[in-house]
Amino acid sequence: MKAFLDEDFLLQNEPAKKLYHNWASSMPIVDYHCHIDPRDIAEDRRFENITQVWLGGDHYKWRLIRSNGVPEEEITGNAPDRVKFQRFAEALPRAIGNPLYHWTHLELKRYFGYDGVLNGDTAEEVWNLCNAKLQEPDFSAKNLILRSNVAYVGTTDDPADSLVYHKAIRESGFTPRVSPSWRPDRAIKIEKPDFAGYIASLGTAAGMEISTFTQLLEALSNRLTFFHDAGCRASDHGLEGIPCRQAEGQEVERIFQKAMNREMVSQEEKEIYQTALLRFLGGEYARRGWVMQIHFSAMRNPNSRMFAAIGPDTGFDCVDIDSSARKLGAFLDMLDRENALPKTVLYSLNPSDNTFLGSLIGSFQGTEARGKVQHGCAWWFNDTKTGMEAQLTNLANLSILGNFIGMLTDSRSLLSYTRHEYFRRILCNLIGTWAENGEIFWDEKFLGNLVQDICYRNAAKYFGLE
Amino acid sequence: MKAFLDEDFLLQNEPAKKLYHNWASSMPIVDYHCHIDPRDIAEDRRFENITQVWLGGDHYKWRLIRSNGVPEEEITGNAPDRVKFQRFAEALPRAIGNPLYHWTHLELKRYFGYDGVLNGDTAEEVWNLCNAKLQEPDFSAKNLILRSNVAYVGTTDDPADSLVYHKAIRESGFTPRVSPSWRPDRAIKIEKPDFAGYIASLGTAAGMEISTFTQLLEALSNRLTFFHDAGCRASDHGLEGIPCRQAEGQEVERIFQKAMNREMVSQEEKEIYQTALLRFLGGEYARRGWVMQIHFSAMRNPNSRMFAAIGPDTGFDCVDIDSSARKLGAFLDMLDRENALPKTVLYSLNPSDNTFLGSLIGSFQGTEARGKVQHGCAWWFNDTKTGMEAQLTNLANLSILGNFIGMLTDSRSLLSYTRHEYFRRILCNLIGTWAENGEIFWDEKFLGNLVQDICYRNAAKYFGLE
Amino acid sequence: MKAFLDEDFLLQNEPAKKLYHNWASSMPIVDYHCHIDPRDIAEDRRFENITQVWLGGDHYKWRLIRSNGVPEEEITGNAPDRVKFQRFAEALPRAIGNPLYHWTHLELKRYFGYDGVLNGDTAEEVWNLCNAKLQEPDFSAKNLILRSNVAYVGTTDDPADSLVYHKAIRESGFTPRVSPSWRPDRAIKIEKPDFAGYIASLGTAAGMEISTFTQLLEALSNRLTFFHDAGCRASDHGLEGIPCRQAEGQEVERIFQKAMNREMVSQEEKEIYQTALLRFLGGEYARRGWVMQIHFSAMRNPNSRMFAAIGPDTGFDCVDIDSSARKLGAFLDMLDRENALPKTVLYSLNPSDNTFLGSLIGSFQGTEARGKVQHGCAWWFNDTKTGMEAQLTNLANLSILGNFIGMLTDSRSLLSYTRHEYFRRILCNLIGTWAENGEIFWDEKFLGNLVQDICYRNAAKYFGLE
Repeated sequence: MKAFLDEDFLLQNEPAKKLYHNWASSMPIVDYHCHIDPRDIAEDRRFENITQVWLGGDHYKWRLIRSNGVPEEEITGNAPDRVKFQRFAEALPRAIGNPLYHWTHLELKRYFGYDGVLNGDTAEEVWNLCNAKLQEPDFSAKNLILRSNVAYVGTTDDPADSLVYHKAIRESGFTPRVSPSWRPDRAIKIEKPDFAGYIASLGTAAGMEISTFTQLLEALSNRLTFFHDAGCRASDHGLEGIPCRQAEGQEVERIFQKAMNREMVSQEEKEIYQTALLRFLGGEYARRGWVMQIHFSAMRNPNSRMFAAIGPDTGFDCVDIDSSARKLGAFLDMLDRENALPKTVLYSLNPSDNTFLGSLIGSFQGTEARGKVQHGCAWWFNDTKTGMEAQLTNLANLSILGNFIGMLTDSRSLLSYTRHEYFRRILCNLIGTWAENGEIFWDEKFLGNLVQDICYRNAAKYFGLE
Repeated sequence: MKAFLDEDFLLQNEPAKKLYHNWASSMPIVDYHCHIDPRDIAEDRRFENITQVWLGGDHYKWRLIRSNGVPEEEITGNAPDRVKFQRFAEALPRAIGNPLYHWTHLELKRYFGYDGVLNGDTAEEVWNLCNAKLQEPDFSAKNLILRSNVAYVGTTDDPADSLVYHKAIRESGFTPRVSPSWRPDRAIKIEKPDFAGYIASLGTAAGMEISTFTQLLEALSNRLTFFHDAGCRASDHGLEGIPCRQAEGQEVERIFQKAMNREMVSQEEKEIYQTALLRFLGGEYARRGWVMQIHFSAMRNPNSRMFAAIGPDTGFDCVDIDSSARKLGAFLDMLDRENALPKTVLYSLNPSDNTFLGSLIGSFQGTEARGKVQHGCAWWFNDTKTGMEAQLTNLANLSILGNFIGMLTDSRSLLSYTRHEYFRRILCNLIGTWAENGEIFWDEKFLGNLVQDICYRNAAKYFGLE
Repeated sequence: MKAFLDEDFLLQNEPAKKLYHNWASSMPIVDYHCHIDPRDIAEDRRFENITQVWLGGDHYKWRLIRSNGVPEEEITGNAPDRVKFQRFAEALPRAIGNPLYHWTHLELKRYFGYDGVLNGDTAEEVWNLCNAKLQEPDFSAKNLILRSNVAYVGTTDDPADSLVYHKAIRESGFTPRVSPSWRPDRAIKIEKPDFAGYIASLGTAAGMEISTFTQLLEALSNRLTFFHDAGCRASDHGLEGIPCRQAEGQEVERIFQKAMNREMVSQEEKEIYQTALLRFLGGEYARRGWVMQIHFSAMRNPNSRMFAAIGPDTGFDCVDIDSSARKLGAFLDMLDRENALPKTVLYSLNPSDNTFLGSLIGSFQGTEARGKVQHGCAWWFNDTKTGMEAQLTNLANLSILGNFIGMLTDSRSLLSYTRHEYFRRILCNLIGTWAENGEIFWDEKFLGNLVQDICYRNAAKYFGLE
């Protein structure tokens, strides 16, 4: 029996071990999409205890603890941090096979040097160990990033954001690049009650009044330039349904006015507005050489009782079955016809879309990059060993695996960089197994370089780091 | 080469063998959902020949024989039992990889002590052996249950049922608990021609007239109490489409009257009625501590010619692609908002729904049980080695595997308890393989107990046996 | 480490090796569905260079090269053949895991005797080697077929086709049978601008005027007889959406007239027309003992810019998410009720439909053949190692694997017969692994014969070769 989490963790044969240890492990990390608060980096934040780090904002863990029948009080409520940690420690060992089991133990080992297993019995020992370590300088935000060999952090930011913390980080001489990503979801969600209010604040940020759709586009263009100057090269969209319904300009203006007057817009009007806005943004991204990321098939806030109680992003979202996914073909085509299709990464939360996506990207490639349109890495609920293997296998079947831009953390935590190690081991094991079984020609140097491309170089080029 | 069906069948490494032989194999069976006729148990039925046992009502086998090009006459028709058995024996060896190949040989080995392979050549030998054994006392219904180490049998029963056989079984001093499950499909299928007639018979069972929707709820409430007193702790629903369309009470009453007058109800009216009824039932289940099981995405009776000829449940149903599955989020939310969400098990017949379901359950957990809302075990067409592995892996990825309530037979046959053995071997092999590969920490006692939880204790608690 | 592409390629255990080498490898090939131009065979075509063979019409390869960021000029444009070959050679080694990586090296080894790896560095050597070999007599169209041990080639032909090349092949005394398949897509696509023009040419072929729907059916019936006399025993349909909407005869006639007058038909009218036409054709196929093949869930020409530039079938199609797939149940039932359901093979391009299809076929079996209704082999984007394993496993789970009619090439190239070798190795490895692990009883002769059934005999019987 192989020891748990030894140096050859997840590497089941010699070629896999060689690819990982000789080629993959030393590559810097390009974490091109995450939810780390740039303020934490700018202020080089430190944490008082492990509950703050792990259970302060991690909806994956909250969800796991809830599945163990624990009352909300001891998850996101007012129970003491030590109790919350205990509940997590009790749930974890029952969750064998869950990525949290691997992530947690990887983080304990790599960052805290803890070799054991976290459970109800060891919780006290781990609590004390971690909290002591967290007081060391190594555990400040910046040092965690440096220790993790991170070359690039792509945060997630609203177009109205001042990017003041990004500026501060840059000016502090911090070596890894920390760049914003443009996430204009609030400008897109015309159906939300706070839409008009948001547009006003976007106007303030852009230094202009926004009272027409045309002005909205102008303001967004201003902000795109502002983001570009701050180093941004990527946008990100969380879409509930793929919009693809074109209408003439006046119709869009009418719908925009309706929403600004705080009138309800219909489903159809919403789609017309979103189509027009994304068409504009696609063109802007394309001409600036940016990447457009699209996340879809997520069901947001299905539990209305808990949404009312503790708000969004608290572990109640789930996978959706989104039949509008097929509109992606028409959507990409609309942009492509106008030379407005930027480098694009498509992420579906529903793995039943994998083959659809893996084939769709091949219909819209171009010369802007090897793999201009990408099937994004296994996202969120799919960010598991089997989920990553499925995405990689699907990509290899349908496209060119060697052109894949690789992994991201999508995380709110500074300890999540071990997810790149996790991905790299899985990647190397997949390719190594093919070699071991005689399914590919073994040329260590060639395959090692290809692995490095996937782990680092492809993303570095794709996001304009080089 | 490993011998077929030896003691380590499906167990591919040492940890798997230890988990199965030391921990799983001796656990009693909680068969919380099956279609065994309680009369067979009450009357301690015995069978004349193996065709009666195996081919008397098993639509899995009928379907298999049909796929071998055999005329219906020799499947469900008037051909002699020996001929029918021959046709099954001829089809089986061509069906390698089919669960029937495993189930059949497991049953032959465990119940009849037959070590060989069933095929056209051995059919005569097996026919004689089985028929001789069936005359032994060990092969009566009650003795088959006792020999199989079954602690609990959950049958499937109509709310109008008198439960007279359950009573008889209880009063006979039979040790294993045989409890009814509440399956009110006929009260839910308002669109069926026999709806009004059924409601009348339900009224008779409840000892009251049902001429309004309110009276229907009252009658159902009476019957729920009657079932509860008979030991019932679980309901079961086979839904064609998830309903979630609320309307005011008068509208529901109007629709009910329409159906009682034998007028056609529209698709929309049907959904309104079903939503109201399930909302009521959900609340009733919740306050009684019952479990609500929901089965969906089955296409019933697509072959109208054969339905006309030999009726339902004869092996013509198949998997559906049911886009209403996404409404489950709104459906569970509707109940949850009113504290009317009971312990719930969701079964989709379409494995493309697995990730959706595995994530959805995490959005509606509670403190009533560890794993209050469950993704049900691989159902019907998915009850295969790979189907079970997929469901278990999905569950492990997205939830807490250790809180899973495990397997059921869903069977009409008293020889199907080997399906629990089949499941347990697959479960132990999955976990054992993780241990063997160093993906989890090997602690035999902890993992052994976790396996026992999944095989027995979780279900025993969930269904109120303890 | 196993050597790449050695004699036991893809065979991971002894039973697999025995099944492949002793039983599968020598079986003749029944390539019952391909897109080879019969003229190439009739004229015993030879090729000047490897770019003409491989990159002259292979949209799989074009798509792969595009994914490597190569300009269209060097893919389907005017760049020299040597440059095009170079671009393919550069893309291929990055595409590990893609079936093209295996197919290409299998073809290089089996046909050209090349043992190395194709990449940018070896391209010159391979170019020279292949081009020299292509001048040898062994590389004419007929000799490639003979060398590949092909017993049957099923081409894909329009009902208006004169089948003159098929006649020429037959009369030339060429041993392998080369038969047409009936693909009436142009008669079905009533919404296309060239529909009326096509109907006119069909009339010419049938020697009659077609000005009514009734005459269309008569003309098709004439052509069916003509095809039947030319050896055709199979039809093939590429459907965008499964139609199942019946209307009275006059309505169909009205819609037909509308289309003949070059007026737009609505989505609903299109479905009514297609339903009527397929219902007629199904009956015709059934009474002639033909096979009906249905291909669906393909998204055709999503990239309108490239469609305008270089037309259809150029590597821009992709997988669709087609919710009309569920109508297949009603569609098959419609035919079955009228005894108009022929032997039928269902192919979905979306593997999320696998379980649906694998179960649906079991609802419409008959005595015309073992496995009258088939879940077709892994099609197009699914024609990968994992895609084939998934289709075979699904089929084994849900039906009788031993009755499967096996593989086809679906190819435009005469070098693609190695895909049958690829399939057979995967099949033997799957069954061999079951035996190795003790999941099936090892009886080499029985399993070897079953493998031969799947590789040859089932298809030979199904398509009427015997």
